[in-house]
Amino acid sequence: MGMKNYVIQGFKASAISAGLKKDGALDLALIASEVESTAAGVFTTSKVRAAPVILSYDHIKGGKARGVIANAGNANACTGDIGLRDARRTADLVAGELGVPSEEVLVASTGVIGQPLNMEMIEAAIPELVGDLSPDGIPLAAQAIMTTDSFPKIACFDGNVTGRPYRILGIAKGAGMIMPQMATMLCFVMTDILIAADDLKEALVRAAEKTFNRITVDGDTSTNDMVLVLANGLAGNRTLPQKELGDFRDGLERVMGELARMIVKDGEGATKVVLVRIKGASNETDAVRAARTVANSSLVKTAFFGQDPNWGRIMAALGRADIQMNEDNVDIWIDGIQIVEKGLGKGADAEKSAAKQMALKEFILEIDLHQGVFQEEIITCDLTHDYITINADYRT
Amino acid sequence: MGMKNYVIQGFKASAISAGLKKDGALDLALIASEVESTAAGVFTTSKVRAAPVILSYDHIKGGKARGVIANAGNANACTGDIGLRDARRTADLVAGELGVPSEEVLVASTGVIGQPLNMEMIEAAIPELVGDLSPDGIPLAAQAIMTTDSFPKIACFDGNVTGRPYRILGIAKGAGMIMPQMATMLCFVMTDILIAADDLKEALVRAAEKTFNRITVDGDTSTNDMVLVLANGLAGNRTLPQKELGDFRDGLERVMGELARMIVKDGEGATKVVLVRIKGASNETDAVRAARTVANSSLVKTAFFGQDPNWGRIMAALGRADIQMNEDNVDIWIDGIQIVEKGLGKGADAEKSAAKQMALKEFILEIDLHQGVFQEEIITCDLTHDYITINADYRT
Repeated sequence: MGMKNYVIQGFKASAISAGLKKDGALDLALIASEVESTAAGVFTTSKVRAAPVILSYDHIKGGKARGVIANAGNANACTGDIGLRDARRTADLVAGELGVPSEEVLVASTGVIGQPLNMEMIEAAIPELVGDLSPDGIPLAAQAIMTTDSFPKIACFDGNVTGRPYRILGIAKGAGMIMPQMATMLCFVMTDILIAADDLKEALVRAAEKTFNRITVDGDTSTNDMVLVLANGLAGNRTLPQKELGDFRDGLERVMGELARMIVKDGEGATKVVLVRIKGASNETDAVRAARTVANSSLVKTAFFGQDPNWGRIMAALGRADIQMNEDNVDIWIDGIQIVEKGLGKGADAEKSAAKQMALKEFILEIDLHQGVFQEEIITCDLTHDYITINADYRT
Repeated sequence: MGMKNYVIQGFKASAISAGLKKDGALDLALIASEVESTAAGVFTTSKVRAAPVILSYDHIKGGKARGVIANAGNANACTGDIGLRDARRTADLVAGELGVPSEEVLVASTGVIGQPLNMEMIEAAIPELVGDLSPDGIPLAAQAIMTTDSFPKIACFDGNVTGRPYRILGIAKGAGMIMPQMATMLCFVMTDILIAADDLKEALVRAAEKTFNRITVDGDTSTNDMVLVLANGLAGNRTLPQKELGDFRDGLERVMGELARMIVKDGEGATKVVLVRIKGASNETDAVRAARTVANSSLVKTAFFGQDPNWGRIMAALGRADIQMNEDNVDIWIDGIQIVEKGLGKGADAEKSAAKQMALKEFILEIDLHQGVFQEEIITCDLTHDYITINADYRT
């Protein structure tokens, strides 16, 4: 995992304060590839899709991209035809400045739902944004796409394929699976590997399933979620056969996993990151479902906050998870300390030790269903007073 | 809706402090019918079922009951064979004192999960509990089954069938769909109507579906949930043919609906009761699913608390509800004030008026999907700081 500087050959970025955020912070980011890149994306599964989601979904079909423009402060969601026109115009203006086809510019937005974009601000900012493009601009772009995030999120992986070094560099934003009033989850990944569009898409879908689809802050799904990956091929490797894709897939999953974990850590009001691991499930679906139900339970999450190894709540969540289970087989551990054996509590001493581990900023909740061999994990955070404060008081 | 005194012919009740609650409050309740009653029950759908749920599910199969004993302070859940033995022994002891078959005594528990019942306390209390049985004891029983509840829950309905007056009297407890550490939802309904066991079961299932299955506090489902209804037939009506069951069904739904509403009102930390009504859904499943997703969204519920008509969060919840919808068709009102028309916001003035309504203790959130003719409702509450406090600090 090479960190060095956050640069990657053939990619430039820039950021500017266009005036969309009220406090004058950076709010418009551009990532551009010097050459046409292979591109793939995954988008929100919500039936309410923001205008930039609709546009970028359409543009990326060709498997090629040159740039990504993203604004924070306004989600351009639930904005009807005007929203779609604004997203298209944004892509057109950037394409014009870059001298590339409009279809090769992708657009992303994050912020308040239901208000039209201030296009005057965006139009005025684009020439300077393009003029400022620089190899060193990626950290600025990571900063510009933040909303309720408390820190910018960047992750990097260095690998080797066909004897050539290559890099994967990703940025992300998000402090919850969804905060439709002000945010959502965005991730942009750049790599200089040479890879076929289909292989890139497949690697992205796999990695997203194991990373961003395995975290939760509040169980919601956003109107604007988007993960994009651009591969410019400048690493100079031979085109990769399927059987040599493993290294890249692992690297992509590592970068996206690191960014996903940062999002949970930065979850609204969160004080703890908890990995919920289900072992011994009958099948993968059950393993994910059990982990997700436990990880989303308000009662389990408040117990995390209270540092209370309240396994009754965990058993109750499993009971309603619609999985194959027998309560008499369930074992539960917190950071290796067993608190439940065959469905029964291990007693006060075990719980006392477990409570000590729960005082840490990160711990693992492991549950063995003893039904089969499948194992899956979901990363979650605790539910705290600050979550209520952030979300109850946002617009007032 | 006759309120009079909370008495009903042929039923007696009593309550005692057996010592299960630490503060010495009433914690053991008994309801007994002077004659053998027709009985029906619905139980939690959780795969983790408390011992009293397993026992009562078995006992009620015969369609007959003479009494219900319920304790608060200990859920007798996740207690293995010992728990089942304790529940059975409780039924046996009550049956012995009442001089009825053990199979006609139903058992319910609510409280902490994972700790064995203190059977010495229960055994010692049963003779006095039976000795105290009185027609006036029902409000005491309602008080004894409380855990985090802030008020006892009783509802009554007076009707007429085949020219004879009859009554339905119900008590319930619960301050959340589940609080496995300390509670769950229990409801006991008594009626003097004469009714066939199959008809009673059918009426109960229908009513539960429209009442207790239409509320949510925190989206959880308990290990101990139980609704029991006993009909002693002393109203003296002729056995009812199917087509004359409507009045009783309505009455039962009214009593259970009133109790369900009280549970939401008493929801942990709740300051508001919100009726979420979905209109114009393609089918019943979609209507319930949409209403439930909106009603369970942490972001929507914190916006209720913040008195913020944050319709973007409502649209986002609908978007992930897995229903047939088109965002361009959606209309949204708060207490009759339209804040969204055809998927777009109606502006600041409308939101300001809606915010005023949201300052009330109760309001209606109405959503028209314009996809079809189906309408369903879910009653929910807001998500507040007190919910976090109650659930984070409970055992510490």
